[in-house]
Amino acid sequence: MTIARGGRLPKGIDAAMRRLNTSVQLDQALWREDIRGSIAHARGLGTAGVLSEAEVRDIVSGLEEVKDEIESGQFTWNADLEDVHMNIEARLVELVGPVGGKLHTGRSRNDQVATDLRLWTRSQIEATLVGLHDLAGVLLTRAEQEIDTLMPAYTHLQPAQPSRLSHHLLAWQEMLIRDRGRLQDARARLNESPLGAGAAAGTGFPIDRESTAADLGFAGAMRNSLDATASRDFLMETASALAILGVHLSRIGEEIVIWSSLEFGYLTLSDEFATSSSMMPQKKNPDVGELVRGKCSLVIGDVTSLYILEKSLCFGYGRDLQEDKRPIFEAFDAAQTCLGALSGAISTAEFHRERMRAALASGHICATDLADWMVRQGATFREAHSAVGQLVREAELRGCQLAELPEEVLDRADSRLSGPDLQQVLDASIAVERRRVLGGPARERVLEALSSARDRWGTDAKVR
Amino acid sequence: MTIARGGRLPKGIDAAMRRLNTSVQLDQALWREDIRGSIAHARGLGTAGVLSEAEVRDIVSGLEEVKDEIESGQFTWNADLEDVHMNIEARLVELVGPVGGKLHTGRSRNDQVATDLRLWTRSQIEATLVGLHDLAGVLLTRAEQEIDTLMPAYTHLQPAQPSRLSHHLLAWQEMLIRDRGRLQDARARLNESPLGAGAAAGTGFPIDRESTAADLGFAGAMRNSLDATASRDFLMETASALAILGVHLSRIGEEIVIWSSLEFGYLTLSDEFATSSSMMPQKKNPDVGELVRGKCSLVIGDVTSLYILEKSLCFGYGRDLQEDKRPIFEAFDAAQTCLGALSGAISTAEFHRERMRAALASGHICATDLADWMVRQGATFREAHSAVGQLVREAELRGCQLAELPEEVLDRADSRLSGPDLQQVLDASIAVERRRVLGGPARERVLEALSSARDRWGTDAKVR
Amino acid sequence: MTIARGGRLPKGIDAAMRRLNTSVQLDQALWREDIRGSIAHARGLGTAGVLSEAEVRDIVSGLEEVKDEIESGQFTWNADLEDVHMNIEARLVELVGPVGGKLHTGRSRNDQVATDLRLWTRSQIEATLVGLHDLAGVLLTRAEQEIDTLMPAYTHLQPAQPSRLSHHLLAWQEMLIRDRGRLQDARARLNESPLGAGAAAGTGFPIDRESTAADLGFAGAMRNSLDATASRDFLMETASALAILGVHLSRIGEEIVIWSSLEFGYLTLSDEFATSSSMMPQKKNPDVGELVRGKCSLVIGDVTSLYILEKSLCFGYGRDLQEDKRPIFEAFDAAQTCLGALSGAISTAEFHRERMRAALASGHICATDLADWMVRQGATFREAHSAVGQLVREAELRGCQLAELPEEVLDRADSRLSGPDLQQVLDASIAVERRRVLGGPARERVLEALSSARDRWGTDAKVR
Amino acid sequence: MTIARGGRLPKGIDAAMRRLNTSVQLDQALWREDIRGSIAHARGLGTAGVLSEAEVRDIVSGLEEVKDEIESGQFTWNADLEDVHMNIEARLVELVGPVGGKLHTGRSRNDQVATDLRLWTRSQIEATLVGLHDLAGVLLTRAEQEIDTLMPAYTHLQPAQPSRLSHHLLAWQEMLIRDRGRLQDARARLNESPLGAGAAAGTGFPIDRESTAADLGFAGAMRNSLDATASRDFLMETASALAILGVHLSRIGEEIVIWSSLEFGYLTLSDEFATSSSMMPQKKNPDVGELVRGKCSLVIGDVTSLYILEKSLCFGYGRDLQEDKRPIFEAFDAAQTCLGALSGAISTAEFHRERMRAALASGHICATDLADWMVRQGATFREAHSAVGQLVREAELRGCQLAELPEEVLDRADSRLSGPDLQQVLDASIAVERRRVLGGPARERVLEALSSARDRWGTDAKVR
Repeated sequence: MTIARGGRLPKGIDAAMRRLNTSVQLDQALWREDIRGSIAHARGLGTAGVLSEAEVRDIVSGLEEVKDEIESGQFTWNADLEDVHMNIEARLVELVGPVGGKLHTGRSRNDQVATDLRLWTRSQIEATLVGLHDLAGVLLTRAEQEIDTLMPAYTHLQPAQPSRLSHHLLAWQEMLIRDRGRLQDARARLNESPLGAGAAAGTGFPIDRESTAADLGFAGAMRNSLDATASRDFLMETASALAILGVHLSRIGEEIVIWSSLEFGYLTLSDEFATSSSMMPQKKNPDVGELVRGKCSLVIGDVTSLYILEKSLCFGYGRDLQEDKRPIFEAFDAAQTCLGALSGAISTAEFHRERMRAALASGHICATDLADWMVRQGATFREAHSAVGQLVREAELRGCQLAELPEEVLDRADSRLSGPDLQQVLDASIAVERRRVLGGPARERVLEALSSARDRWGTDAKVR
Repeated sequence: MTIARGGRLPKGIDAAMRRLNTSVQLDQALWREDIRGSIAHARGLGTAGVLSEAEVRDIVSGLEEVKDEIESGQFTWNADLEDVHMNIEARLVELVGPVGGKLHTGRSRNDQVATDLRLWTRSQIEATLVGLHDLAGVLLTRAEQEIDTLMPAYTHLQPAQPSRLSHHLLAWQEMLIRDRGRLQDARARLNESPLGAGAAAGTGFPIDRESTAADLGFAGAMRNSLDATASRDFLMETASALAILGVHLSRIGEEIVIWSSLEFGYLTLSDEFATSSSMMPQKKNPDVGELVRGKCSLVIGDVTSLYILEKSLCFGYGRDLQEDKRPIFEAFDAAQTCLGALSGAISTAEFHRERMRAALASGHICATDLADWMVRQGATFREAHSAVGQLVREAELRGCQLAELPEEVLDRADSRLSGPDLQQVLDASIAVERRRVLGGPARERVLEALSSARDRWGTDAKVR
Repeated sequence: MTIARGGRLPKGIDAAMRRLNTSVQLDQALWREDIRGSIAHARGLGTAGVLSEAEVRDIVSGLEEVKDEIESGQFTWNADLEDVHMNIEARLVELVGPVGGKLHTGRSRNDQVATDLRLWTRSQIEATLVGLHDLAGVLLTRAEQEIDTLMPAYTHLQPAQPSRLSHHLLAWQEMLIRDRGRLQDARARLNESPLGAGAAAGTGFPIDRESTAADLGFAGAMRNSLDATASRDFLMETASALAILGVHLSRIGEEIVIWSSLEFGYLTLSDEFATSSSMMPQKKNPDVGELVRGKCSLVIGDVTSLYILEKSLCFGYGRDLQEDKRPIFEAFDAAQTCLGALSGAISTAEFHRERMRAALASGHICATDLADWMVRQGATFREAHSAVGQLVREAELRGCQLAELPEEVLDRADSRLSGPDLQQVLDASIAVERRRVLGGPARERVLEALSSARDRWGTDAKVR
Repeated sequence: MTIARGGRLPKGIDAAMRRLNTSVQLDQALWREDIRGSIAHARGLGTAGVLSEAEVRDIVSGLEEVKDEIESGQFTWNADLEDVHMNIEARLVELVGPVGGKLHTGRSRNDQVATDLRLWTRSQIEATLVGLHDLAGVLLTRAEQEIDTLMPAYTHLQPAQPSRLSHHLLAWQEMLIRDRGRLQDARARLNESPLGAGAAAGTGFPIDRESTAADLGFAGAMRNSLDATASRDFLMETASALAILGVHLSRIGEEIVIWSSLEFGYLTLSDEFATSSSMMPQKKNPDVGELVRGKCSLVIGDVTSLYILEKSLCFGYGRDLQEDKRPIFEAFDAAQTCLGALSGAISTAEFHRERMRAALASGHICATDLADWMVRQGATFREAHSAVGQLVREAELRGCQLAELPEEVLDRADSRLSGPDLQQVLDASIAVERRRVLGGPARERVLEALSSARDRWGTDAKVR
């Protein structure tokens, strides 16, 4: 194409090379930001006296016409024009005539695409934060509803200690609040303008970069033209935050799958969020959890690709960077899709309270409480731990729970293991309320945690 | 959709869930294999007596009609029908009536998609082998043409010892020959049929799985229905082979970039394989090398995603596996695109023989030869290495090359460093021919290597 | 150090640089291969007439002395000597005097370390194959013992269709047999000798590389000196095979964790393979499964690192390659540790047959059989699937299983759903035997599969 | 071991399992934090009235004795005691008697190791920030020294536009300042205390978690016991920041390697930061750049492993997390080692000013300036770009630079290309000063950037 290859390479590009070189099928997603950036650049050229007021007006109105065409689906993307930038510029020239050829004065695709990508990433982070906020809201609501649903806390997928469902849901929510922080930090750090950095070493035209930066909502202009055009740590950082978010969502997904199993029976998804089987008519599958796990796998691959892309890259811009788009596009799409599906799935799921509570009756779930009780009677914790461990062993041999062992067995094990309080010690519904340390599952603590979570999500102006 | 959700989940799917659940925009790429697999399955049902001959005929001709529609672009893909399988089956039923509803007898999407993916991967491996063979052919041809082009062998990007361009190009080719082997091994290992494994535990209909396997060109039927439907190591292995190939191509890409630099000046790409700049009119850039490096970064991310997807996955099929498509699709596309572009770029590039040869005049490139010569005079190699190292130091201080040091300096350093042969020792064009050990850069050895490479690529019937 | 830095860089290395540069703490693991390679090289120098017979004898006996010292723990590793090669060579010179300085004639650390690594990798693959064979043996034995243990086949962690434990264990085994194939292929492909390739461009001494290759058990000599010293695809390929193996072991690990849960109750580990808790005296945790999953995560990171290390690396040798050791060392260690622990854990675990069989009573596990039965009565599969799906829905509303629905409900749903055979159709223990397609869970098929697996593992001479 | 396995699992652990299970060889690195955390916990038990003042005193002084033993190298680590926690506790009991057995009251290894890891990570971040600050200081000093060293700005490794070395060094520094921000953000986010979260569900002892948090310098206590013990996003986030830092350092490393090539000849490392060859006596290799690239590859693998480890992990603690240590340990070690070596290497390297400046004479480096000049004469940029592109083509055919084309050739190309100013336009040393846009390479702008960078690094109290 004339524009892209200029007078230097008059011959066309080879077909095999074009397949490698053309990116418009993917980077057209940046069209809105590309036009916005071009308008700011045109205005900057006007202020600098490079373009006349009339020229700026013509270019801006031409760009807005291109925008309308794209929005309304009338725009024809041309792979021969290589990328989103050249497609839009070529159309602009068609619409406004030769003055369109003045738009690229003092600019390179290198600062142009860096600007587009930062604008796009910024708006995607904001959309992701909305999704995050929605899911947190669902979790808080469900946690409030399930405040009286007792269940085991697990470690190693074995019942560990008595807890409550709200406490578990709040654990999920705690991860998300840190995810929010990471995305907000990434947004703040990337919010600087590369525009005006040119190909690598700026431009000789007296563009006021702080002013075009402000026009685009950036907090300021980047300080070094080489860095501005050739660094993509804003993508690596954002994708890392999305990968961590993805890991967290996949943890929720895994628990949805396990809790939906017949064997656990803790949760039933609503039909609208379940899937069936093409062969087995009885199936109602928790694919939502599995798909979230699967999408998370892609996001980890995406951030890995971005690290590798930028690794060992010389200054300034290298064309390797064309390939940064697919990974970051997919990472955002995966995150937002998963957030939406999980919000819906969790808000409409049914928790089986009786099954959860019934699980407290097994697994000798108050063994720690019994040991703690011995400590209160004067044993060292290690003595107590050992004594209770032996009792559990005894109970297993007898096929009963710790709480069901005959008194004389307890007494024989350790003389401190007697007295009327023992039954209270081994009652899980009492035991859970004993865990009233800050961050523990006692009802009052969870209510406090809920209230604090509402505050943290609700009052933070940056959330949405 | 009726077909997919059956009678079990009569309500439709939620919109947020649909976004996560629908895969047809991507997996429609498998349509050809899906139809081929369905035809084989229909025939298998016929042989088993489950379908009548007439039913088989109707279904097969219906499937071929669907195939024609897709090939000619007339087929309408419907996202509500979730995936490629349901789209094709629904259209079949439209075309042939209720008998189409018999096709899925004794089959599940789980064995169906595993079959499709194996068929597709097999054919993609074959296409990649063709591209690999083409690039190897280009390298061998260029190596023949450049048999008399001397250049330094580098280590650490520093001139190391005298060598020749053909030797370097053959090093590239050696990597590719092992890539071929890995792809062939992967192809052989995946060439087994999952069809008939059903959802997880086979089927009660007496399908002859060996026969449908043969119909599809598989070497046999997989031996375990759970494994057949839930394992994807064939994708992990293939993607690993592609990632290694990508690493190799990126090494070639890196050298194209460095050799194209003005400072090295070893290579000029033809205009058809070069790119220009939107800002800098003088630019002729080696983007082909950079884009290959970039694509390779994606492929490494892709194989990482596939490992993660399958990690810790319970038997049998889990929906996480829906996400295996994008990574393997991209990995093949990247490999084939890069192979094609490199073949073209290298076959049309100009090597600057004089620049390469001139580089032999610097870097004290025959220092090893001088040390070896001392060894022949009786020194231990360590003595010789140390003595020559000091001479290089002396040459650096004088700003000259080792070969330019005055005789008395050499003689003073070690009395063995004298005699009329010394100039020969330090003549790079003689030194390169001294390296006639097997695998070395001496002309005769490289000619032998070329001939052997022709044999290895040419006579292997499995290549193409 | 004198040896390493030679006469060229008489000043010592900076402390900060030394920390980066020194590798002996890690690469000393290669000592056995380093000595073996050096002995072969010394003999090669002898045959080439570079060393006298006596010199070869002195060097070889010196190297064997070093070997004894290392084996007996008397050897002192010196970080100032940078790496394993220089440590051994320096000690050799101490032991045998200046003749030791002749060993490195015609050799570089570049071909030396490539040789060491290939020898080491080859032997580690062999050790891993032994571990793999052991685990497969355990699985086959347990599968034989559990031939009559029925259980559900799951998809999406939901009961899918009736199956048997042996069938499940054989699915695990099928993955391993392909892992064996990949490791064997990697072993065959890497089994070529780099020795004699020198630093990058071979050597001028007339070493017979095929002969030293044979001495070291290699199938031949590598054909290109640049490739021999600078390529590490043998590590990438081997690590990929180990990562895939790790993924497979982590799948087994995941199922051990889930099956050990109280809710599933399918499996109890023996005490020797379980762990407890420092706080909770009742705990018996399936850490073996979790640690295997965890180790697999490391191996995926390891192969990723190896891909990245080699990506975009110029020819010949670059020092980046020093860092290839930790990843490949860890990958092998993880694989072998996990294989050993899983073999022990699975061979000593108790399967709870009654729990497994009891699970067949839920999940409407014969729904597919009912639909198939309707097909046999003339319905299309899609009709049957839909009708049975509605019946499952009805059963769910009634809180019963499909098999417990009153006859009139069935009959009302579809007139074909009646008759004395229906109870047989819905009997899981009969249904499992109906799945006698090749690769299915019917008893006879599983016995066949067992026998075939014994053959495949046992008669393959390359296994161990 | 008694302590770890308690009364529940009286039999010892199997040897194969022990190899998988034991972590003390690695996690002993946490000893200092483990002791610090235990002291805070003991004090917390005292305040809660669980331990008497005397008991606290005994335990604390015992722990300090253990600390002295470890610091002085007298401590014997025992692999049978599994991990750092049990080793230290066992020794404490030996030293202070049964009261030592009271330390673990109300605590689990789950909150203990989470606390240790957060303390350790926090202090490692601080050490890394010091290294980062040092490297930035070196870059700023060198940038000041080289303010008058002109060189090309490159894109695609081709000369792009005139620039200066200081500008390039400041681009490196800009990346680092964002790396600092990421590490500071990670530090702030992780600085919360898990201590008191117990195994999963807190403890029944009335420990004041805010108070022990303050004792350990944490900003507060974590709000949810499940999350506190089972989440490791602080490691994922920190490792991501280190991976991005590693990517940046590897970019510097790559440029050191390329600039050190004879062909570029821009940089010579001091001998103390260079390495030699065991075979080639002339070699002085820039291994520092290569090793930094290599270490960065490991760090990317490390963060990948951490993502995978935590992916799909059920709440609460799973033993997979044992494997988080090696990756984070290596990532920090790599970062700090590379920072130290690069600081030394860059501060002692020699830049070859004349070579850099000489490079401005080639590559038609002022082509953009010429096009800009035409724009100032009224051309549209696209016209100007095309015209200059053709002139460059003409110059290439003539084998000269753009600045050397005869006047009539310019004039013929475009009538605006004439006049006395043209020579100034094409003078690179003038052209660089024309680029005085904010962030550009003009001398005044770079001096401003230097001063601003000094401010940003210097006044931030959190840096060191």
